[in-house]
Amino acid sequence: MRPQDALPDGLPVALPDAVREALLAPLVDHHCRGVRRDDLARARFEPLITESDSPAPPGTTHFDTPAGAAIRRWCAPLLDLEPHAPPAVYLARRSELGPEDVNRRLLRGAGTAAFLVETGSEAPEMLSAAEMGRYGGAAVDEIIRIEQTEHEVAETADSGVAYIAALETELADRAARAAALTSAIAHRHGLDFDPARPSRGAVIAAANRRLADPKEPLTDPVLLRHLLWTAVEVARERGLPLRFHTGYGGRDAALHRADPALLAAFIRALQPMGVPVILLGCYPFHRQAACLAGAFPHVYVDAGLALTRAGAGAATVIGELLELVPFHKQLFGSHGGGVAETCYLGALHYRRGLARALAQRLAADEWSPADAARVAYLVGSGNARRLYRL
Amino acid sequence: MRPQDALPDGLPVALPDAVREALLAPLVDHHCRGVRRDDLARARFEPLITESDSPAPPGTTHFDTPAGAAIRRWCAPLLDLEPHAPPAVYLARRSELGPEDVNRRLLRGAGTAAFLVETGSEAPEMLSAAEMGRYGGAAVDEIIRIEQTEHEVAETADSGVAYIAALETELADRAARAAALTSAIAHRHGLDFDPARPSRGAVIAAANRRLADPKEPLTDPVLLRHLLWTAVEVARERGLPLRFHTGYGGRDAALHRADPALLAAFIRALQPMGVPVILLGCYPFHRQAACLAGAFPHVYVDAGLALTRAGAGAATVIGELLELVPFHKQLFGSHGGGVAETCYLGALHYRRGLARALAQRLAADEWSPADAARVAYLVGSGNARRLYRL
Amino acid sequence: MRPQDALPDGLPVALPDAVREALLAPLVDHHCRGVRRDDLARARFEPLITESDSPAPPGTTHFDTPAGAAIRRWCAPLLDLEPHAPPAVYLARRSELGPEDVNRRLLRGAGTAAFLVETGSEAPEMLSAAEMGRYGGAAVDEIIRIEQTEHEVAETADSGVAYIAALETELADRAARAAALTSAIAHRHGLDFDPARPSRGAVIAAANRRLADPKEPLTDPVLLRHLLWTAVEVARERGLPLRFHTGYGGRDAALHRADPALLAAFIRALQPMGVPVILLGCYPFHRQAACLAGAFPHVYVDAGLALTRAGAGAATVIGELLELVPFHKQLFGSHGGGVAETCYLGALHYRRGLARALAQRLAADEWSPADAARVAYLVGSGNARRLYRL
Repeated sequence: MRPQDALPDGLPVALPDAVREALLAPLVDHHCRGVRRDDLARARFEPLITESDSPAPPGTTHFDTPAGAAIRRWCAPLLDLEPHAPPAVYLARRSELGPEDVNRRLLRGAGTAAFLVETGSEAPEMLSAAEMGRYGGAAVDEIIRIEQTEHEVAETADSGVAYIAALETELADRAARAAALTSAIAHRHGLDFDPARPSRGAVIAAANRRLADPKEPLTDPVLLRHLLWTAVEVARERGLPLRFHTGYGGRDAALHRADPALLAAFIRALQPMGVPVILLGCYPFHRQAACLAGAFPHVYVDAGLALTRAGAGAATVIGELLELVPFHKQLFGSHGGGVAETCYLGALHYRRGLARALAQRLAADEWSPADAARVAYLVGSGNARRLYRL
Repeated sequence: MRPQDALPDGLPVALPDAVREALLAPLVDHHCRGVRRDDLARARFEPLITESDSPAPPGTTHFDTPAGAAIRRWCAPLLDLEPHAPPAVYLARRSELGPEDVNRRLLRGAGTAAFLVETGSEAPEMLSAAEMGRYGGAAVDEIIRIEQTEHEVAETADSGVAYIAALETELADRAARAAALTSAIAHRHGLDFDPARPSRGAVIAAANRRLADPKEPLTDPVLLRHLLWTAVEVARERGLPLRFHTGYGGRDAALHRADPALLAAFIRALQPMGVPVILLGCYPFHRQAACLAGAFPHVYVDAGLALTRAGAGAATVIGELLELVPFHKQLFGSHGGGVAETCYLGALHYRRGLARALAQRLAADEWSPADAARVAYLVGSGNARRLYRL
Repeated sequence: MRPQDALPDGLPVALPDAVREALLAPLVDHHCRGVRRDDLARARFEPLITESDSPAPPGTTHFDTPAGAAIRRWCAPLLDLEPHAPPAVYLARRSELGPEDVNRRLLRGAGTAAFLVETGSEAPEMLSAAEMGRYGGAAVDEIIRIEQTEHEVAETADSGVAYIAALETELADRAARAAALTSAIAHRHGLDFDPARPSRGAVIAAANRRLADPKEPLTDPVLLRHLLWTAVEVARERGLPLRFHTGYGGRDAALHRADPALLAAFIRALQPMGVPVILLGCYPFHRQAACLAGAFPHVYVDAGLALTRAGAGAATVIGELLELVPFHKQLFGSHGGGVAETCYLGALHYRRGLARALAQRLAADEWSPADAARVAYLVGSGNARRLYRL
């Protein structure tokens, strides 16, 4: 199947051929996670299409969401169903085909040339990065989740000093095989952290406390900052980008503390070091993120989880991001994971949303078709290839 | 008059019959206040269509606002005038018809099956909840404003201990006849309050200070938090939702402290208690509110005051709210009050705005007509009936 | 050349004649700065079309931005080139014509009747306010940048007491020839400053510290607040507005601290003094700014830098601002400066963006053509004439 065959009948608007072609070209999905390899009963499937970790309230379903409507509309046809199939029909067909066939159809349907997969918690029911590539007919690269690395180090280190050393070694080792490192400090603590590097004494003291209860998720601000600065060193040495989850997406911290604007001082500190900073997600602070990408030469953004979760609403978000973001600073990432539907919908709504934004600019006689096609290539794959050196 | 007769010639866009019917179905207006029963001179009318408590600057008028333009466009025909009637003509006709007829035309014109009316400051020039229902041809339920209850308790209690006891009794008594309780802590203090329940000792001490000057509006954070937690207990016992004013709408606190995202820790604390939390208003933080509604099973939102105040601009706000909010989590509320025009315009721009958002999704081949109709029923009345047990 | 000749073939949408005429009427550009008088090599030109102070990353160009695309699309024809001319062609033609001709074409092309120019750092390579008027065929008024005045005072005062006195005298002297005063406290410190006037003792102590190193940009919060309150007194005495840079536009402070909502307490303190407060820029907090303009009789806003930088995206921003802002409270300002392209694009995208917002309201049968024309006149020039007493 060629990628464009997996797309719906066409993009939603009349577009010049060159623009359509650019939109349909294979993507680099610079941010996704593994998807489940097993057959999923409805109670297990539903939470994976939301940011909630609870069942929907009595009498309702998580399918009653923009993402649920998008699955019924766009994924159903890939499973040989009519568009808008009811949830029960969709899930029955999903089981009938079996997860292997479903994952292949959806991941391949995304029309992606390369997946950059965040790894680090290798639950056996999840596809590995290599498997994601195999099912999707795509190249893969791995991205290190630095809090996951820390977790493994904390469970084995026997002193604060050993913890510091092991963290350096372990991050450097993993970075040797990876395309970037990702921090989740936004959802562990908030992006309003002290941007200064903590002192070694403070880190050792905090690490000794941490080692007493290493099973807990890391929330200590001193250790989170130490982890981040260790990752900065590794990224600098290896020429890798450092990525931050920001905005919507975690239930553990308050949303207002995940505003990427809070990173400004840290971003400024990193500028002379030559480490690119990638802001993931960002919604509903994507305009703030675009401002940062416009002001700092080393800052990059994507349109984030909104693609996957907002469905029909993604086009507005993409349009807002395009207000100020330099064309060489925006990336495509599906933010998919959990179920393959999310990877497919991320790619689909990226293409459809960008198509609408470009069509508006063409109709308003603002951009030339060549401009529009160039932006689509840059955001869809060119920027990621340059930045991650793929 | 049937509700649909009161609507303009039609909804603004071509819509399938089922969707049009769902949009025109009687609404549950889950948030409004009483409107004036007396004839209003221009100087008294103008401030009631704004959030300002001052006259417009010299040489200008509060009619020079989106809400003013909407009154001239949409309310004038209900008073037998041409659309876009000048303010002086509109107000002269309003006086000529008399407030009783005007209130009946506008409230009935809203096409509302039930008003949920915030009560508690029974100024004699305002229609009571029962009168709102009579004029509007609608059922009514009352909502308790907890700060108003506290005010009355503070004026009669003679000790901190008596204050605490009376607050519990009074809130419980009123809740027995009410559909929900509403907190205005956003505009009294800000939503960045300490989510922990204050100690009894701290409450008694603060109450004793308060009783020395009980006429003042309550702004003490300890007592505001105590009031809130007392309301939580009452809501839990009676199975009622707890509502919060958020976002735009008050001049007393800073807007950035009314961001509903600031409630995250408090929302998390309430999750195991089974008390639904309703975020009212939210603008310009409605996307943040939608994120919370998506992440937490007990959080609900409305599109708020923007419907009534933004007029022509309301459709954009509704579209943004729909990006992420689960369909079973959004409510319609006119946020009307003061003058009946606001209740009418809230309903009108809700219907017109949702119509545009649905039409866009239908035109983009994203949702089926059945999806669109279902969303319109849920948001317009179904969710409120389920949540408030109407 | 008549202003309308300089516009593109037409506004982007079908508009009633009265509305088109109102949109094409000469503007008052209430906020711009001087532009360069010299020929600019590409390396000098590029940073002046962005908010970045760095070259674009290797392999990219600052022309790969919405502003760059807008220059190629809209400025190229004013230089007798085809629309969408490549950057190298554009810059070669720019040099060929020479800066005098280019500045004249672009400034005159803006169709502006009056420029209000922020002055105070009279670098010789920048056009003065008078020259801006001459090239643009427009009247001019000057706006005082109060931090610039402070800088000059700090370099000459020899004691804290003398500093205080000189600041008062100097601001009053300059205000006698100016139309308003502008504060940059948002980008020097943040808008989250203590709104109280600092004590004389604290100011003297801080001033004495400052005088030890007067070349540094002022960042001391006590002196910034003292400067602001001195400016308030001067503004009150002379009946001038006080303006604040807010939102996107500076790299020196964090964006979240430039949210105009943070000014609420200070705005409230100024209300009884009758000093108008103008919020400049605001993006991405323009909705917050509109809320403030709706709630307080003395607050005004513009759509800011987004006009100049967002190009094709400016229409959305203008539409959002129009959701709540009273029509007598919005101003046009190009936020141009550095190169004349920015002044031209600010005016162009203001006209095109407002045209789209008005066309949408007319098509939705919300506003009458007379309403739309009136809003265009008020925002384009009437409000500025009234507020600045031009």
